[in-house]
Amino acid sequence: MVNQTLKGFRDFLPKEAKKRQYVLDTLKKVFESYGFEPLETPALEYEEILLGKYGDEGDKLMYRFEDNGKRKVALRYDQTVPLARVVAQGQNELPMPFKRYQIQNVWRAENTQKGRYREFLQCDADIVGVSSPLADAEIIALANKSLETLGFKKYKIKVNDRKIFENIDLESIKILDKLGKIGPKKVEEELERINSKEILNKIENSKPLETTDVILKTLNNLGINQSNCEFFPTLARGLDYYTGMIFEIEIEGYSAGSVCGGGRYDNLIGMFAGKQIPAVGFAFGFDRLMEAMEDLNLFPKDLQTTKILVTVFSPELKEKSLQITTLLREKGINTEIYLEENVKMDKQLKYADKKQIPYAIIIGPDEVSKNMVTLKNMKTRNQKTVLQNEIEKLLAS
Amino acid sequence: MVNQTLKGFRDFLPKEAKKRQYVLDTLKKVFESYGFEPLETPALEYEEILLGKYGDEGDKLMYRFEDNGKRKVALRYDQTVPLARVVAQGQNELPMPFKRYQIQNVWRAENTQKGRYREFLQCDADIVGVSSPLADAEIIALANKSLETLGFKKYKIKVNDRKIFENIDLESIKILDKLGKIGPKKVEEELERINSKEILNKIENSKPLETTDVILKTLNNLGINQSNCEFFPTLARGLDYYTGMIFEIEIEGYSAGSVCGGGRYDNLIGMFAGKQIPAVGFAFGFDRLMEAMEDLNLFPKDLQTTKILVTVFSPELKEKSLQITTLLREKGINTEIYLEENVKMDKQLKYADKKQIPYAIIIGPDEVSKNMVTLKNMKTRNQKTVLQNEIEKLLAS
Repeated sequence: MVNQTLKGFRDFLPKEAKKRQYVLDTLKKVFESYGFEPLETPALEYEEILLGKYGDEGDKLMYRFEDNGKRKVALRYDQTVPLARVVAQGQNELPMPFKRYQIQNVWRAENTQKGRYREFLQCDADIVGVSSPLADAEIIALANKSLETLGFKKYKIKVNDRKIFENIDLESIKILDKLGKIGPKKVEEELERINSKEILNKIENSKPLETTDVILKTLNNLGINQSNCEFFPTLARGLDYYTGMIFEIEIEGYSAGSVCGGGRYDNLIGMFAGKQIPAVGFAFGFDRLMEAMEDLNLFPKDLQTTKILVTVFSPELKEKSLQITTLLREKGINTEIYLEENVKMDKQLKYADKKQIPYAIIIGPDEVSKNMVTLKNMKTRNQKTVLQNEIEKLLAS
Repeated sequence: MVNQTLKGFRDFLPKEAKKRQYVLDTLKKVFESYGFEPLETPALEYEEILLGKYGDEGDKLMYRFEDNGKRKVALRYDQTVPLARVVAQGQNELPMPFKRYQIQNVWRAENTQKGRYREFLQCDADIVGVSSPLADAEIIALANKSLETLGFKKYKIKVNDRKIFENIDLESIKILDKLGKIGPKKVEEELERINSKEILNKIENSKPLETTDVILKTLNNLGINQSNCEFFPTLARGLDYYTGMIFEIEIEGYSAGSVCGGGRYDNLIGMFAGKQIPAVGFAFGFDRLMEAMEDLNLFPKDLQTTKILVTVFSPELKEKSLQITTLLREKGINTEIYLEENVKMDKQLKYADKKQIPYAIIIGPDEVSKNMVTLKNMKTRNQKTVLQNEIEKLLAS
C-alpha cells in the first residue's frame, strides 16, 4: 500500500493547519470589515469555461479529464474565471457593485522543483461593476489593511497601469517584467537581443498616467502611508487579462517574490456576460504569505485552544474526572479529559506537555475525600489543591 | 460559451455562503473547545489509497483519472481513509491520542436526482489511538455539544454496537437498517422474502451490550440529557468499516434523515499502518445540517457585517467621504464607501438597502460647511446631522 501524497500535494498537520486557520480567519475578518462577501464555486467546471482563458501555459497546466458521464471537465485553475461565470449567470440578482472574496484551492500541474505546489490556496477579493478609480484604490487599500492586520510593518506597494505599455510589443514587456528577478543588466541584454534596448530607458522614465495619480492620491485619503506606495513603471504583471491599473506588494525581509498582486480587468467578464462589465481585484499567494509570516515571526506564540487537561486517576475515580470536565465546559473553559482509564499520571501529563496544554487537573482519592481538585500549572510545574469553585479564579490569576 | 455549473455542483452566493460560514465557524469553535485540532489532506490522492475502501459502490462513484504524469489519481471520497493514511505516515510524530477535525469537500458521482450533490462538505471529528469507551462517549458528547451550540433543542441520539449483528448475515442487516426509512411492515416483508423474518423480533428485543451501557452512563456523566440518548438495536450504519459502537442523530422536525453519524472503526488504520490502531469518530452531513437549520429557523437574523455605508455626494466632495471612511475604519467600525462618484443619492441608498447595511452617512456641502455628517438609520429612515466624533455614540444608542 502506498502511504504517500502525490508530488506537489500536501497534508497540513494540526500545527501548520492552525497557523493557516489563523491567517485565513484574519483575512476573512478584514475582507468583511470592508464589505466584501464570501463566494464559493465548484472545484470542477466544464473544461470549456476555463480553456483558453489562461493562455497556452494555462491549458497545459490545467487538470482536465472526462467524467463518468463523458463530460469534459477541469479542476479550478484560478478564481477569477469562475467569478466571471457567476457574474454572467447572476447579472440581475447580484447587488452591484458586487464585492466578493473567495478563498479556495486551485490546482495546477506545475513543475514542482521550483518550490511550487500543485494544490494551493488562493485568497481573492474583487469589485465587479465599477470603472471608477475609487474601486482600484479600495482594492489596494484592502490588501494594505490585510497585511497591516497580519502584523507586517514594512512592505512596498508597486502601482502601474497596463496602458503604459500600449505601443510596446509583448516580447519586450515580458522581458521588462523580469526586472525585479534578473536585474537591469540582464534585462538590457535581453532587450538588445531583440533590438529594443531603448525601451527600458523609455519606460523607466515614464510619468504615471493620470489614473495612476488619482489612485495614489485616493490611497492617501484612505490613510495609506505614501511611503509604502510607489509608481513603478516597469511592473507589467505577466500577460493575462489586465486592462488598466496593476499592482504588486513585496514584503521587506521576504525575498521570494510578491505576496499579493492584482489589477483591473474590464474585458474578462464580458467574454461570458455578452456585455462589458468592469472589474478590479487581487489575489494573495497564500503559501508565500505563510512563509513571510514565518520568516518575520508574526504568528502568535500561542495558537493552543485547550486550557485544561483533566486527568483520570483510576478507573474508579473516572466519574469524578468526567464531572469536573462537564463543569468546566459548562463554564465555557476549553477542557480535554484524558481518554483512557488505566494510564500512569506521568504519561497523561506528558500528553498535556506535547499538546502544550497550560493546566492539568488531578483528582485522586485525597482530593475526592476533601471534595477538592489539584490544579497544576504545566509551565511552572507548581500545583495547588483547591475547591472546585476556586478553579476559575486561579486560572484568571 | 456555456455559462453553467456541472450537474450536482453548486455556486454559493454571498447570502448562502455567509450562512455556511456561520455554521462552520460554530463547529470549529466547538471542536477546538474539546481539544480537537484541524487537519487538511489533498483533494487528489493515489487511486490505490482510496480504491476498495468504500465497497463496490465507492469504486463506482469515485472521480478517477490519469494525471499528466500518467499517475492514477482520485478525488477525495471521504475524510476517514485520508486520515488513516496520515496516521500511518506520521505514527511517531503525532501526539497520541490524536484528536483531529477535518472540514473539506468530497466528490462523488452520485445520482443527482435524489437531491444528492456531487461536491459536498463533510465535517469530521475523530479520536485515534484509544480503545476505551471514554473516547466513544467523548465523540458523542462532541456531536451533542455541536448541535446544542447551533441552537438545536430536540434531537435523538441513537446508539448501538455493530457486534450486536455478529451472527446475522449481511443481507438481513441491510434490510434491518432500512427500518427508519420504510417502516417495520416492509422490513418484515423483505426479511420474510429471504427467510429471516425472526431476525427483526430478535434484534428489537436485544439488550444493549455492556460497552453500550458504559458509553450511555459516561454520556450521562458528561452532562448529556439522558432523554436525548437511546439504545437503538436496529441501527446498523450501512456496511462499511465500523467494528464497535455506532450512532446516528436525528433532529425532531427535520425528516430528511440523520444529520450526524459515526462509530468505532478499529481495523481501518491498520490497513495502512501495518498494526492495529483503534479509532472512533463522526461526520456531520453539512447539507442536511444547513437544511435543518433553515427549517427550524436557527440562523441569526443578521449575518451582515458592514455597519455603515459612506455615500459620495459629488466628485468634489469625494475626499471628505474618503476621510470619514478612513476615520471610521480606524475606530474598528466596518465601513463601506460607495465606489462611484457620479451616482444619485437614491441609488446609493438603494445599494445600502439591498445589502442590508443598517446605516448610511451623507456628507453634502451643508454638512461640510458645518464640519458635520448626516447619519441615516436605514431601517427607520430617521436621520440626524452630527459632529464626526458623535457618530460612534449614536451607533451605540
